[in-house]
Amino acid sequence: MRRGRPALWVKWGLPHGINAGDAIFTLANLAMLRLEEVSNPMVTLHAARVLHQTSLLLTQGQYLDLEYEKRDEISLDDYQPMIERKTAALLSASTKLGPLVAGAGDRKTAYYGEFGRSLGLAFQIQDDLLGIWGDQAKTGKSNQSDLITGKKSLPVLFGLAQNGEFARRWRRGSIQPDELDRLADQLETEGAQRYAQERASEFTQEALTALQRAEPVGEAGQALHSLTLQLLGRED
Amino acid sequence: MRRGRPALWVKWGLPHGINAGDAIFTLANLAMLRLEEVSNPMVTLHAARVLHQTSLLLTQGQYLDLEYEKRDEISLDDYQPMIERKTAALLSASTKLGPLVAGAGDRKTAYYGEFGRSLGLAFQIQDDLLGIWGDQAKTGKSNQSDLITGKKSLPVLFGLAQNGEFARRWRRGSIQPDELDRLADQLETEGAQRYAQERASEFTQEALTALQRAEPVGEAGQALHSLTLQLLGRED
Repeated sequence: MRRGRPALWVKWGLPHGINAGDAIFTLANLAMLRLEEVSNPMVTLHAARVLHQTSLLLTQGQYLDLEYEKRDEISLDDYQPMIERKTAALLSASTKLGPLVAGAGDRKTAYYGEFGRSLGLAFQIQDDLLGIWGDQAKTGKSNQSDLITGKKSLPVLFGLAQNGEFARRWRRGSIQPDELDRLADQLETEGAQRYAQERASEFTQEALTALQRAEPVGEAGQALHSLTLQLLGRED
Repeated sequence: MRRGRPALWVKWGLPHGINAGDAIFTLANLAMLRLEEVSNPMVTLHAARVLHQTSLLLTQGQYLDLEYEKRDEISLDDYQPMIERKTAALLSASTKLGPLVAGAGDRKTAYYGEFGRSLGLAFQIQDDLLGIWGDQAKTGKSNQSDLITGKKSLPVLFGLAQNGEFARRWRRGSIQPDELDRLADQLETEGAQRYAQERASEFTQEALTALQRAEPVGEAGQALHSLTLQLLGRED
């Protein structure tokens, strides 16, 4: 299921799923080259290179994610290398391509890239927090909690590193819906929620600092600032 | 099994297989952009576009191939649209990119593309012929015969269109190793081998004509001519 609908491969079979993915991947690359119609060849090549390099990072992130699923113990240090590639790289490319095409210059473009990267890291950790303490995850009947799916999110890795009651329970195997409340509370008591909130705040602050350095102007600049606070669930 | 070795997905699992495929696809696209180091930006963009458009055609060919596998009856007319995309498109891109980068001009480049396309079509039909009447396919103990795997190759489609003895047997279901010799002979009697040989010859002739029009020179030109005859199993 993706966004509440069956994935393409479920509906039409794996071979068509893989093939359609390749086709859409190619269409994205072709769309990027159409930049040439409104920009110059050098900028178009640069943008295409950014997209390809980002795609490569995404496959590295996916590789780490698949490996982490198999390994019993992942340390806190393993977390960032994975979300840098799986989440932050794509947001960084998105925020870098605009200034690149607008001819904003290398320094400004790098700040925008840094803005997207930090925003991506903050956003992923926020998503991890919601996966355990969000409204959807908290309702006992839900199977959406990351504690049930076994996702090695940042709060879980923090909890495992504490080697306390949470870690002992996690290592005994699958967590059941009726344990959710107690385990989420236990994880909170051990400091995992606070730790993740602090990391998310740090990255949010880094994102806002990078955005300030990029000196966005006018309505669009204000929109980026609002978007950041909105994505992270904070007031503007 | 690919070229006698287990496929990546068999060895490391489907998720890693798909992910590694995406990574390699991306590396190919990045490699193409490195053309910029030895060529100009416009040519590099043009070459990248050719590669993407070809990739898109390959997914269309793969789509047709998957659909044909499911359908009971495929007509002779369904054959070419599939191999144009699955086989000929890639060879056409390969023979077009050289002259494109060398600055050979649109007309010459188009002839080279036409050369690769016709060569690809001839080569695929030749492969179809070997899949039924080649040494590997003929040995009774082999499971490599296209008659056993059920591949809807050109001779098979020709045989089905005859609605004769071969077609009646094919429609009754899987063919067994001990029927191979008889069925291959039957298909030959019904004219399928001759038909496919004639089509392969036509495309070979088209390839050689296009190559002549492209006016390749020197050693490299001679090599393309030799390659064509060699690929198609003919004397130089």
